[in-house]
Amino acid sequence: MQLPEHGSNTKYVYDSLKMKQPEKVIDFSVNINPLGAPKVLQEKWGEWFTAINDYPDPYAKTLMEELAEQENISAEHLLAGNGAAEIITLVARYLAGSKVAVVHPAFSEYAAACRNEGCEVVEIVLAAPEWNLEVSALADKLHGVKAVFLCNPNNPTGIHYSRETVEALIEVCKSTDTLCIIDEAFYDFLAEPVTYIEKVLHQQHVLIIRSLTKMYSIAGLRLGFLAGDPELLQKIGRTKPHWSVNALAMKAGVACLQDESHTVETRRFIATERTAIFQELKMLGFEHSSSQLNFYLLRDPSLSTQEQLFHYLLKQGLVLRHTENFPGIEGKWLRVAVKQPGANKILLEALAAWKQRN
Amino acid sequence: MQLPEHGSNTKYVYDSLKMKQPEKVIDFSVNINPLGAPKVLQEKWGEWFTAINDYPDPYAKTLMEELAEQENISAEHLLAGNGAAEIITLVARYLAGSKVAVVHPAFSEYAAACRNEGCEVVEIVLAAPEWNLEVSALADKLHGVKAVFLCNPNNPTGIHYSRETVEALIEVCKSTDTLCIIDEAFYDFLAEPVTYIEKVLHQQHVLIIRSLTKMYSIAGLRLGFLAGDPELLQKIGRTKPHWSVNALAMKAGVACLQDESHTVETRRFIATERTAIFQELKMLGFEHSSSQLNFYLLRDPSLSTQEQLFHYLLKQGLVLRHTENFPGIEGKWLRVAVKQPGANKILLEALAAWKQRN
Repeated sequence: MQLPEHGSNTKYVYDSLKMKQPEKVIDFSVNINPLGAPKVLQEKWGEWFTAINDYPDPYAKTLMEELAEQENISAEHLLAGNGAAEIITLVARYLAGSKVAVVHPAFSEYAAACRNEGCEVVEIVLAAPEWNLEVSALADKLHGVKAVFLCNPNNPTGIHYSRETVEALIEVCKSTDTLCIIDEAFYDFLAEPVTYIEKVLHQQHVLIIRSLTKMYSIAGLRLGFLAGDPELLQKIGRTKPHWSVNALAMKAGVACLQDESHTVETRRFIATERTAIFQELKMLGFEHSSSQLNFYLLRDPSLSTQEQLFHYLLKQGLVLRHTENFPGIEGKWLRVAVKQPGANKILLEALAAWKQRN
Repeated sequence: MQLPEHGSNTKYVYDSLKMKQPEKVIDFSVNINPLGAPKVLQEKWGEWFTAINDYPDPYAKTLMEELAEQENISAEHLLAGNGAAEIITLVARYLAGSKVAVVHPAFSEYAAACRNEGCEVVEIVLAAPEWNLEVSALADKLHGVKAVFLCNPNNPTGIHYSRETVEALIEVCKSTDTLCIIDEAFYDFLAEPVTYIEKVLHQQHVLIIRSLTKMYSIAGLRLGFLAGDPELLQKIGRTKPHWSVNALAMKAGVACLQDESHTVETRRFIATERTAIFQELKMLGFEHSSSQLNFYLLRDPSLSTQEQLFHYLLKQGLVLRHTENFPGIEGKWLRVAVKQPGANKILLEALAAWKQRN
């Protein structure tokens, strides 16, 4: 049995390794806001019950209007999805049979969804431990490529590409007639968020993927969206199932978007906690990626692949994210979520004990 | 602006007709259990809140096991979907570019989803007001057809095809190498439910579509599934977005399946109420389809298309379902849900007043 393709649902990691899952597990494999969902969701939860009974608005009008206002864009530039995962599937369906490129390391669904649709996937693999993106070296590779996926800020490294780099990529894509698809699923965890969503107003070859499930901790409800040229969105949305965004996701989405304080508090918390973790990791002799997000890549430089460390932690109920299915990383790092201080401390203590033993 | 493709979300009907939606509206256009959701959902709602935070199980294991037990089938014969709508989209994706047939009248999504995937759709249109299905006359039409969709019991007519008819269709499909896709979204509203799900254990060319949103009134949560040959399901599920079934739908699905009393009570209620409505309609001089479900087709035989009656009722806030996009019906009938006695009475009074005026 293969290791799971994604974080969360820890029982599948243990099952795949034929290990017994300990009674108490801390899940560092899932990249969700450690502060949880905005309080307003719990407050409204009771009154939202009746929304389960009837069909959701197939056009998600109220949500789209709220999003449009927040993003300073018109609603026709937006397409709501049953999580960013559905958006990626729809985009892949649109690209079916063509040649696409993925800048790796990256969220594994772009390549998986495109391959499912018969695409040829060109892997552009950046080199650890900087994962620098040299756009000038890319132009050649994009000739004849219908779309390139860039995850920025990046999952799994947490690295944030500079504005210069991203704008250069958008320009190169224009010259090669390549769709430039930027997944900004984690942009709002940056201490100072940077988005390229306004590009879609003038650049028909730019698509921005967004998720509301990470920052607002509503992964169970599923909610994401795509921003892009209205005509292109119509083509991409053509095969979207009717009513694909459920009624609760819509209610929660609107309430979350109106609660700015939660994102501000989250950013402050993540920056502080991550800085403290990184100091400790360095002291203990671990390497980490220069993440600016709510997760990071970790390795023990004395090991080539991190399998032993991964298993050591699993046995203690500390579930990190394996990286076997990330091209360019393939087990040489582990991905770790920044969690609440208590949980982070338990992990750091386990890592300290590991270093003492090895 | 076109009339909406589906029932529910009444504001889109009024918008499309440039009519102002009255403050109080009764929605007869949506085919959902008039008794609402099982009580257990309200009881559990509070404790399910935390399920929104983390990713749902991508394999919906607990739900699949519960379904398998209920249907007396193994879980590998089942594929969960984000509503039956997602299942239909996935099936259409699998059939992309081929020739398919739809027995009409039927739920409009089969043809719409298949056309979206570049299929040629053969329309097999049954004649009103009996909508008899003569399978012997069908064999010729199925040569070279990759799949045929049958909605049984039928939406929008409410007619239940006999076991002899359905089994004959399954046999014909075998001889013409045609997938026989039976949508049983409303089978559990029959006074004595009949399902063909056990066929998938031995007949690789049979697929059964099911929905949990109608009987359990959880259309806002989205939940459906497909039953079929495990290998075929793997192919069909290949392009399903990861985590497409949300965590609340899973929780609700399991709880609903364990609450048999709600379905028993619903069936009794629907049968009684529908009989009473039909008696009254006959007395008033209206025609109706021989529905065995929680909705029926209605017409004033003095009118050819029912547009005038549709608008007359809309003005009073009574929203029926237009049938413009049902081949073979196209406006000559209106679809009406069986609702709570109070609502049904209001409709019957409005219909009586209509008859007095016309």
